[in-house]
Amino acid sequence: MSLTTPYYLIDKSKLLINMEKVARLRELSGARALLALKCFATWSVFDFMREYMDGTTSSSLNEVRLGHERFGKETHAYSVAYADYEIDEVVSHADKIIFNSIGQLDRFADRAAGIVRGLRLNPGISSSSFDLADPARPFSRLGEWDVKKVEPVMDRISGFMIHNNCENGDFDLFDRMLGTIEEKFAPLLKRAEWVSLGGGIHFTGENYPLEKFAERLKRFAGEYGVQVYLEPGEASITKSTTLETTVLDLLDNGKHLAVVDSSIEAHMLDLLIYRENAKLSPNTGQHRYMVCGKSCLAGDIFGEFDFEKELKVGDRISIQDAAGYTMVKKNWFNGVKMPAIAIRELDGNIRTVREFSYADYETSLS
Amino acid sequence: MSLTTPYYLIDKSKLLINMEKVARLRELSGARALLALKCFATWSVFDFMREYMDGTTSSSLNEVRLGHERFGKETHAYSVAYADYEIDEVVSHADKIIFNSIGQLDRFADRAAGIVRGLRLNPGISSSSFDLADPARPFSRLGEWDVKKVEPVMDRISGFMIHNNCENGDFDLFDRMLGTIEEKFAPLLKRAEWVSLGGGIHFTGENYPLEKFAERLKRFAGEYGVQVYLEPGEASITKSTTLETTVLDLLDNGKHLAVVDSSIEAHMLDLLIYRENAKLSPNTGQHRYMVCGKSCLAGDIFGEFDFEKELKVGDRISIQDAAGYTMVKKNWFNGVKMPAIAIRELDGNIRTVREFSYADYETSLS
Repeated sequence: MSLTTPYYLIDKSKLLINMEKVARLRELSGARALLALKCFATWSVFDFMREYMDGTTSSSLNEVRLGHERFGKETHAYSVAYADYEIDEVVSHADKIIFNSIGQLDRFADRAAGIVRGLRLNPGISSSSFDLADPARPFSRLGEWDVKKVEPVMDRISGFMIHNNCENGDFDLFDRMLGTIEEKFAPLLKRAEWVSLGGGIHFTGENYPLEKFAERLKRFAGEYGVQVYLEPGEASITKSTTLETTVLDLLDNGKHLAVVDSSIEAHMLDLLIYRENAKLSPNTGQHRYMVCGKSCLAGDIFGEFDFEKELKVGDRISIQDAAGYTMVKKNWFNGVKMPAIAIRELDGNIRTVREFSYADYETSLS
Repeated sequence: MSLTTPYYLIDKSKLLINMEKVARLRELSGARALLALKCFATWSVFDFMREYMDGTTSSSLNEVRLGHERFGKETHAYSVAYADYEIDEVVSHADKIIFNSIGQLDRFADRAAGIVRGLRLNPGISSSSFDLADPARPFSRLGEWDVKKVEPVMDRISGFMIHNNCENGDFDLFDRMLGTIEEKFAPLLKRAEWVSLGGGIHFTGENYPLEKFAERLKRFAGEYGVQVYLEPGEASITKSTTLETTVLDLLDNGKHLAVVDSSIEAHMLDLLIYRENAKLSPNTGQHRYMVCGKSCLAGDIFGEFDFEKELKVGDRISIQDAAGYTMVKKNWFNGVKMPAIAIRELDGNIRTVREFSYADYETSLS
């Protein structure tokens, strides 16, 4: 059967490329790698990913439960803030809980005494090129930064999470920032048993110096006597998935426009939030089109791309690199048909794991 | 029972204020008013709204079905593009179908021959202050603008939809733009039986000159012999709803920060997309706080507000004006607890119409 577009298509053979790099990094460095569910939480491929990763990390009760129940292995709980009524359930699903603030630690340390406890540190530097996503932005609420304030709570915690990389594909920048972190937080790191360096490090990208990265992590671990964790989100799933769409209409308004049966706002939200273009491949050819979504939003535009042939209604357009921060943010804006989720198995067969119906739309409201 | 935050709270007594203005406008002007489901589709209050409005308009198959089944009365179908496999079902739910392009009209006119057919016109001017939301932006895909191209298809259509107002609270601007539309499209308007002037006109706002607006609509209707439609979205539900949140943590990072149990990206997405601040009321007092969401996003910030008292964990913060383009776009980013939906009835009682569970989160993926 041929699945109707739109659908997200996760290709396990492409996912495998990332997974093998993750596994190799773990082996070389001794660091453990936890999938960041905030980026990717499509649990039908967790059985596959579990062989290559140590577990998951989370940013809410829902995510920590999903990680625990669907992925298993090691489960980290982090959240900017937990509510009183949810903390016990969070603890029940986690091996380790990382509080965002001393305030949250004070509030919940006792109720989390049965598991490993940690604290988020904010080094005040980051690799983010977007203020919106910069954890080190002025007045950031993400983590504690004052060594003098943290030292008195060391009796209740055994480690730290420091997440200040964002889509960082530059090893030297990572290296320099880690150096700054060491200078700044050495007194704390020396007393820690574990340190998570968070996500945002694009170490599965092409030409990333995996060996140097592994060596740096190993050296850091040795220097402070800590177990290092990484929390790869995008790095785990990069280039593994497409959003499959179909051309519904063609217009000529000074440019050639192709309207597809999807929407950036509904299905690839970060393109809208960060004002970025989608990726198409190949993107060479004589026929340039602006590829537009079908929502009412004037700016619902995937980007302008060069096609080999003139497009016609019914043509397939595959939006590349559609795994990270897409399915976890999809929404019913305009009631646009929700993309199904399908998996291309290693043998090439495509298996549909979720289709969305009118009932799903209707019950998203009330 | 006290409902756990976060939740959207729709207050019927406040909704009633808008509904009475809508009803008055209809009476004064003869125009018909259709609720724009893309803005607000919480169907539990449709029974209430139905008494004051003529029906609904839609931007997809899902929306037109919801309008038909849950609201009833007159049902307009519009979409930037329909797919072949859905057009028959769209037609089955609609009284009127408005095509976005001549291409779509050519493709589907026959299959829609049993209902009233129309076309979207783009006058090339708008009141939008956001390029993202501006239907008249360069290369816009929204509607036909060339009279010479439209004239030959008049045998298949009987009216038009023109939507070029966006949060327009300025009657004089509306009046001037309608004048331009008349100049530009007079040959088409004279042959039409109905014209929808779309949404985006903030005629339920305080001090809006409702009588002058009604007179202008009536004059337009008379001049061309058309039934006028309006498609109020925000105007229908403005100021009717709050997003109820609770303070989970307080931090001092150069500013006083309060973290609440919600997230702009997950629950009030337009604040993020348009980089706007939420509204709080009252917003006067000696104690200034930056109110932040609990997602991992550094820029998940509702805004800075002045409170009467120092905040403490557990305090309630009510985000104002949370009906439009919020519930229809809510999503599971970070797995943040999805706000319930509750209605304050006219007698003051609060009725919860939808709560979301872990199972809802888990089945949003697969």
